[in-house]
Amino acid sequence: MAKKMTIDLVAQRAGVSPATVSRVINHPELVSAKTTARVNACIRELGYASLVDRYGTARPPEERGPIVVNIPWLDNPFYSEIVHGVRDSARTAGYDVLISWDTPRQSTVGAYCASLRRSNASGLITMCSLSTETIERIDATLPTIQCAENNPETDVPYVTIDDRSAARVAVEHLISCGCRRLAIVSGPESYKYARGRMEGFLSVARERGIDLDPNWILQVPDNNYELACSAACHMLESENAPDGVFACSDTYGAAVIRAARRAGLSVPDDLMVVGFDNIDIATMTTPTLTTVNQPRYRMGYSACNLLLERMRGGAARSMTLETELIVRESTTRR
Amino acid sequence: MAKKMTIDLVAQRAGVSPATVSRVINHPELVSAKTTARVNACIRELGYASLVDRYGTARPPEERGPIVVNIPWLDNPFYSEIVHGVRDSARTAGYDVLISWDTPRQSTVGAYCASLRRSNASGLITMCSLSTETIERIDATLPTIQCAENNPETDVPYVTIDDRSAARVAVEHLISCGCRRLAIVSGPESYKYARGRMEGFLSVARERGIDLDPNWILQVPDNNYELACSAACHMLESENAPDGVFACSDTYGAAVIRAARRAGLSVPDDLMVVGFDNIDIATMTTPTLTTVNQPRYRMGYSACNLLLERMRGGAARSMTLETELIVRESTTRR
Repeated sequence: MAKKMTIDLVAQRAGVSPATVSRVINHPELVSAKTTARVNACIRELGYASLVDRYGTARPPEERGPIVVNIPWLDNPFYSEIVHGVRDSARTAGYDVLISWDTPRQSTVGAYCASLRRSNASGLITMCSLSTETIERIDATLPTIQCAENNPETDVPYVTIDDRSAARVAVEHLISCGCRRLAIVSGPESYKYARGRMEGFLSVARERGIDLDPNWILQVPDNNYELACSAACHMLESENAPDGVFACSDTYGAAVIRAARRAGLSVPDDLMVVGFDNIDIATMTTPTLTTVNQPRYRMGYSACNLLLERMRGGAARSMTLETELIVRESTTRR
Repeated sequence: MAKKMTIDLVAQRAGVSPATVSRVINHPELVSAKTTARVNACIRELGYASLVDRYGTARPPEERGPIVVNIPWLDNPFYSEIVHGVRDSARTAGYDVLISWDTPRQSTVGAYCASLRRSNASGLITMCSLSTETIERIDATLPTIQCAENNPETDVPYVTIDDRSAARVAVEHLISCGCRRLAIVSGPESYKYARGRMEGFLSVARERGIDLDPNWILQVPDNNYELACSAACHMLESENAPDGVFACSDTYGAAVIRAARRAGLSVPDDLMVVGFDNIDIATMTTPTLTTVNQPRYRMGYSACNLLLERMRGGAARSMTLETELIVRESTTRR
């Protein structure tokens, strides 16, 4: 357990006045970015004991505010199983869980932190892609854990998967099934998951000496079925179509299967498809979708355990969990 | 605008002491059900002005706690568009929105109300199926609106659709497509939506003189794809299979399409299927799913407008919104 931290101790270590520390916590918009960063670093080094007092762990259970889970899209079933895990862990420690559907940005993070304070939040688990400055500012307001998505440039602990390796397994599978004209449907580049999966895809293609057609590298700005469907239709209806698609989410995978049908292509005979996430949708499509399973419940449960540890003033160690390929009809030749 | 209400006024009208009113609001577990009901009724009659003071509308915007949206299942994409509407309406009035994934019951409603207080909630929009006692107790804690689902035995205002009529349109459509052996996959009976849609289904069958096979009336205890799939497989693999299925959700509709495929039946040639909700899944299945569109965004937006009206101390009038049938491949003979 970390030694109980006071604002004075932080001030002393950061070489600023206690009033400045207080301002960083309560009104960071009044403090320079440099000073904010220094003070936040000291708060992290010293542990969360003083914030714990402010945010409720030290209070009796009946006064503890909720753990807030911050998700970027409510309509993506990917998140529900993670929140399920968070909730089960939180309840063992007597906390409620509320979900905030919002992606705080530099221009809105002040308002976001104020809103967390108004709802008396005890801690935050974020699955959004946040800038370093944004996440550090939130983390200075209350103990924070990154889950699924993570910004590697901050010290805020995370629970995630190795997107690059998992993508490599998926792409190697397409190649082992005979695919040579490989395409990718990727997500917004601001997301680590999208960058990692793209890297995995490109690295396998490079190592295997597979030429990539630039028209087969699709980037969809949102995890949106309709957008992905349009983009995939355009690709598959051209004269030169790929024979294997790595879709960075099951939503995209379902969209590729739909687009193939519109283009008159048979999956898996003309085109093989691998998705990512293993949400229900992967078994709703015809054919069913080969995909990469993420241990979503465990990600949520572990992330909340780390958060509770930080809220108690302890150190939390980041975790990278294992994934596995689930082979279904979309890559099984009949 | 309602006259400003005080605890004294409520106590006077209910014929109890102010301390009892306070207990009903803060510790209802200490008060008899009968007294709680009487006090809650008086609070509703007198309007919300005093609760408004306690829960924040009278406070400056920077001190207003969130509007909480209470949903029964996070993994049902049906809710996301409703929450989207809630959020847009809430933001125009300067409120944040947090989502609570929980179905409070009689045994947990005290803890649930306490948790709403801890998170400083200004108002609640619930989409859960709640008992009369449960919803009235929540409504006495803070202004509440029922959305999508509603308990007709309470005076708590709602925004919903006419499930019975909408189901009738769907079933009439199956009949007009030539279906005579009609089945239904329905949801948990505790939900008004499931009861209403079942009633609509039965009433059309009765009027049209269509005999129903009891084995074709399926009730799935949860809006769960796998459960519905198992139940539908069992029905479709028997010797005597229906030729038209009314599925009370698109999740169920997708499950019936999957089950038909397993049973070697062609949709729509051997079996026609109509879903309900018009979520993305209805266009992800092969064939795409005919369904009943609910104006989900508008339901959420309207529910939040009603809530804001109540939070200002005004009266809120319940609304029933229109639905429409969207015909897709699952009922279009090729």
